[in-house]
Amino acid sequence: MVDLVTDDRPMRSHARRNRERIIDTAREALTGTGQDISLNEIARRAGVGIGTLFRHFPNRDALLEALTYDRTMALCAEANRLIDTMEPAAALAKWLRCLCYHMATCKGLPASLVAGGLGASYQALEAAATALLVRAQKAGDVRIDVDVPTLIAMAGAVSWLLELDPSQGDRVDFMLAAIADGLHA
Amino acid sequence: MVDLVTDDRPMRSHARRNRERIIDTAREALTGTGQDISLNEIARRAGVGIGTLFRHFPNRDALLEALTYDRTMALCAEANRLIDTMEPAAALAKWLRCLCYHMATCKGLPASLVAGGLGASYQALEAAATALLVRAQKAGDVRIDVDVPTLIAMAGAVSWLLELDPSQGDRVDFMLAAIADGLHA
Repeated sequence: MVDLVTDDRPMRSHARRNRERIIDTAREALTGTGQDISLNEIARRAGVGIGTLFRHFPNRDALLEALTYDRTMALCAEANRLIDTMEPAAALAKWLRCLCYHMATCKGLPASLVAGGLGASYQALEAAATALLVRAQKAGDVRIDVDVPTLIAMAGAVSWLLELDPSQGDRVDFMLAAIADGLHA
Repeated sequence: MVDLVTDDRPMRSHARRNRERIIDTAREALTGTGQDISLNEIARRAGVGIGTLFRHFPNRDALLEALTYDRTMALCAEANRLIDTMEPAAALAKWLRCLCYHMATCKGLPASLVAGGLGASYQALEAAATALLVRAQKAGDVRIDVDVPTLIAMAGAVSWLLELDPSQGDRVDFMLAAIADGLHA
C-alpha cells in the first residue's frame, strides 16, 4: 500500500496490462467468425472484473474504438496516399472499398460508425473521407448531394453482406462498383 | 381418445391453433423493435413446448417463411402490377425498394433470403424478381451481368441500414437510387 501511495507506477503498469488484455481479448472475440459476445463475457475471458473493464472502457464503443485504432489510423493514411496518387472519383471509390472491408472485420463496428458513436480516431476517419469526397465533388466527378455520413452508411450496409458471408466478395465488389457509378455527377 | 381415433378433427384444429399461435407470437417478436429472440423464447411466449414448435416449423427459416407468407405473395403481385404499368428500369427500381422495406420488417429475414434458405413462397418471389430483371435487361436498360441473387443481396444490405435505424429513410432512398443508377446499362 505504501508503494501505491508514494509511487503509482506499479498500479499504472498493472492497469496498463489489464487494458491490453481486455483489448486483445475483445479483438480475438469480435474480429473472428461466430456470434457477437457481451462485455461481461469479454471481461471474463480477459480475467478481469466487469468493473475493471468499465473503468478502462466506459461503453462498448470505447472498446471498439481502441481495438480498431491502428487500422483506423491506417485508413486515414491510405486516404492521403490515394489523394496523392489517383484521380478523384477513383480514389474515393477505392477508399470506400477499404472502409467497407475494415468495417466487416469487427462485429458491431458498422452499426457504431453509422450511429456516429465512436471517438477521436473516427473523427480523423471522417476528416479523411471528407477530403476525398470534397476533392471528387470539386472536380465535378461526384454528385454534390452526397455527404460523409451517407458514404459511411453505404459502406456499412455493404459490409453487412460481407460479414454475413465472406464468400460474397464478388457481389460486394459489384455493389460497390454500382454505388460508385451511382455517385457519379 | 376414442374421438381422436375415429375422427381426427379435434386434434387437427388443436394443432392448427398451436400453429397460428406460434406464427402470431413470432410475428409480434420478430417484426417489432428490440433484440432478436430464440425459438425457445417464441415457444415459451406462445405457450407451447419447443417440440411442438419444431413439429410445425422444423427450423427458423420455415417459421420466417410462414410469418411473412402473405407479404411475400403481395410482393409477387406487386411485381406483376409494375410490369403492367411502368417502364422496365423504373419498375425494377421501384420493386427493389419494396423488397428492401419488406426485408427490414422481419429480423433475420435479409440473412435468410441472401442465404437462399427459404421455401416455396420465396421461389415465387425470385421468379417475380427474374421477370422484372429480364424485362429490363431485354429492353437494354439494365446491365446484363446482374442476377437475381445479386439484387436480393443488395436489397438485404440496404435493409440492414433501415432496420438499424428507421430514421435513415432518406439515406436508404439515396442508396437505392444510386444502386438503380449503377445498374443502368
